[in-house]
Amino acid sequence: MAGSNRQAAEVLHNAVIQAHGALQARTPLVQCITNVVSSNYMANILLAAGASPAMVDNTQEAGLFAGVADALLINLGTPTDSQVESMRLAAAAAQQAGKPWVLDPIGAGGLPWRGAIALELLQHRPTTIRGNPSEIKGLSGLGSGARGMDSSDEPESAVPAALELLRHCRTVGASGAVDHLVGHYEERPTLIRVYGGSCLQPRVTATGCALGALVAAYQAVAEPLVATVAAHASFAIAGKLAAERHAAPGSFAVAFIDELYALDEARIQQHLRIDVTSLVSPP
Amino acid sequence: MAGSNRQAAEVLHNAVIQAHGALQARTPLVQCITNVVSSNYMANILLAAGASPAMVDNTQEAGLFAGVADALLINLGTPTDSQVESMRLAAAAAQQAGKPWVLDPIGAGGLPWRGAIALELLQHRPTTIRGNPSEIKGLSGLGSGARGMDSSDEPESAVPAALELLRHCRTVGASGAVDHLVGHYEERPTLIRVYGGSCLQPRVTATGCALGALVAAYQAVAEPLVATVAAHASFAIAGKLAAERHAAPGSFAVAFIDELYALDEARIQQHLRIDVTSLVSPP
Amino acid sequence: MAGSNRQAAEVLHNAVIQAHGALQARTPLVQCITNVVSSNYMANILLAAGASPAMVDNTQEAGLFAGVADALLINLGTPTDSQVESMRLAAAAAQQAGKPWVLDPIGAGGLPWRGAIALELLQHRPTTIRGNPSEIKGLSGLGSGARGMDSSDEPESAVPAALELLRHCRTVGASGAVDHLVGHYEERPTLIRVYGGSCLQPRVTATGCALGALVAAYQAVAEPLVATVAAHASFAIAGKLAAERHAAPGSFAVAFIDELYALDEARIQQHLRIDVTSLVSPP
Repeated sequence: MAGSNRQAAEVLHNAVIQAHGALQARTPLVQCITNVVSSNYMANILLAAGASPAMVDNTQEAGLFAGVADALLINLGTPTDSQVESMRLAAAAAQQAGKPWVLDPIGAGGLPWRGAIALELLQHRPTTIRGNPSEIKGLSGLGSGARGMDSSDEPESAVPAALELLRHCRTVGASGAVDHLVGHYEERPTLIRVYGGSCLQPRVTATGCALGALVAAYQAVAEPLVATVAAHASFAIAGKLAAERHAAPGSFAVAFIDELYALDEARIQQHLRIDVTSLVSPP
Repeated sequence: MAGSNRQAAEVLHNAVIQAHGALQARTPLVQCITNVVSSNYMANILLAAGASPAMVDNTQEAGLFAGVADALLINLGTPTDSQVESMRLAAAAAQQAGKPWVLDPIGAGGLPWRGAIALELLQHRPTTIRGNPSEIKGLSGLGSGARGMDSSDEPESAVPAALELLRHCRTVGASGAVDHLVGHYEERPTLIRVYGGSCLQPRVTATGCALGALVAAYQAVAEPLVATVAAHASFAIAGKLAAERHAAPGSFAVAFIDELYALDEARIQQHLRIDVTSLVSPP
Repeated sequence: MAGSNRQAAEVLHNAVIQAHGALQARTPLVQCITNVVSSNYMANILLAAGASPAMVDNTQEAGLFAGVADALLINLGTPTDSQVESMRLAAAAAQQAGKPWVLDPIGAGGLPWRGAIALELLQHRPTTIRGNPSEIKGLSGLGSGARGMDSSDEPESAVPAALELLRHCRTVGASGAVDHLVGHYEERPTLIRVYGGSCLQPRVTATGCALGALVAAYQAVAEPLVATVAAHASFAIAGKLAAERHAAPGSFAVAFIDELYALDEARIQQHLRIDVTSLVSPP
């Protein structure tokens, strides 16, 4: 790895503020094909952050809607046969229409059936792949499977896998105590670390799922790397501020929504903490 | 339009208080065939308000249960093939058994497939149709489709469409900053406006869906127009009171449930704000 | 019935504290095949209590995952055809692998179709059957059906039915204002009453469902009777403490999660209230 790139961090810092303003101004319509555990929380997170959610996941409408929506999220959390067919239709339609879309490969790596679906969906070239480190490693073929839905790996360990996955997409996010995001900055593969959040976040279900949806929302209003950073930064700041006021997961989850809603330029200025590192491409 | 009818407003004001008491006394069993985003929040809203929810939506039981329940809600938010079949069975069974039922045509107008399902269900004569203005206009054939699930129209603009839909049902509710409800009062088509609520309500997902379920609950204990007003009034009052204490959507949503639970005669007396206007029928 | 057994109560009291510590230490992976209303709340309850939820309920993965997970919950709240098939596969796989599993027969008794499914699943010998009194009576064949999903019976009235069901499982829990649990203590059929909770608990949807999942989590770290008592005791204590701070169901539900998260040895010591009674077996 090369050293830290302070100029790039500053550029991205300002771009995140711009992206946040653009999200508020444009209220992008985000189609979510997602798991049953996450749907309510995800919709509330999108509404709090300034986007408009639509959980259209039936086979009759999924493809049509992907052409209408501003962005698409596909989350493999609790796939039904019908949802899987909708994922195929929607991913193809988004690709066809040039709409950004995000793949959240929940459980891929640990579970072969959904792992194969995730791999198949890569042909439609997601804009971003977001997951926990175990999922990123599993999807890239560089990791052993996790046991459940929670990650047993550190985000840093998923960076090689994330770089590998850049063949299929524009950015990859491996979430954790420090989020590790990779993409290209000035045409060089680059790692961005996002600091913040709270140890309570993993105690609230569907936090990662909702983050994937917010990445999709930002993809509708900013270029891929900025969008990926902006979504993760929003969660890191809201999580940090919510944890300053609440020490248990029930009230934290409520405050987290409130903090996302209250996010503004001043708070981003004050609390955003990222660093940027140029990387060598995988051979 | 004719002028405001103050006497009717007073009659309805008292009838809403009576309906609220009847709901507490009888705890009606409300079958909900609804979207995955709303199911938890809707059940909690019904429980807080004094009703008993049952989300029976499989084809094996939906028709049977509609004959047992006191009221039925059908919400088209995230329809699966199986749910659509259950909607047909339950609507037919409710009609057969003379049970009240509410149609919430989420996304109808903007999405042809579900629009056709909503039109088909009208043959079973719902007691009430509740939606946002775009949905009401879309279902009546008088509006262009909305882009997503959120309305782009003002409730007032949906009144002609609502009157048109009275051919199929007893009352129609178009929700918004000021809810616009139509039905017959003393055999004349009548518009009731319900004031209150909060601008945070659209920032909490499934608020409209839960309102549809509460309309169904009230239909089990009051006549159609009163029930429709009572449900909307409950939401308007709870929303207004919750927003006085909370300024962000996470904590607002929690307080909204608390305020619905705390609603009583005194609070209705103090906070209910409606006006009633006699209308000319559509030609 | 024989008299109260104070020594047994003391033994169980200490065993509950040990089980709580073991849950925190081992974070068991709990597969949940559950209804759509409960999934988010259930996952948050498991995370708050110290377990790791995974809602794997598709036919492709349900059986495989039951062999991997530490425990399984099957809840009949809103069964789809596909979920029912997954329940069969997962229950068989759990039995085969010697993993504990919990059956929550929501609505069994009142609804013949799911009643038959629940009876069929008994062949795979659940570790625990948990339900409201009407469901326990319905499943045992000793009760008339309830009308909706809420119980119309007192827990005490379900004790004969619970004893009857011990032919199929190790413990049975009938939840209510005072939970009535039956199982074998020193090889004698025994009734344990768990005191606590709050009258607000029935006003929060999926509380019973989430309790079933927590019973499954505890089955992974303690023997069946202790696990059943530990889960019910956790809910009784958290409910009591949450109700001391909140008087309405929205804020109570949030505080309930916080209290489960905050549960520790000192709080169990201070607030656990159970009594133990030896029973005569059914003839």
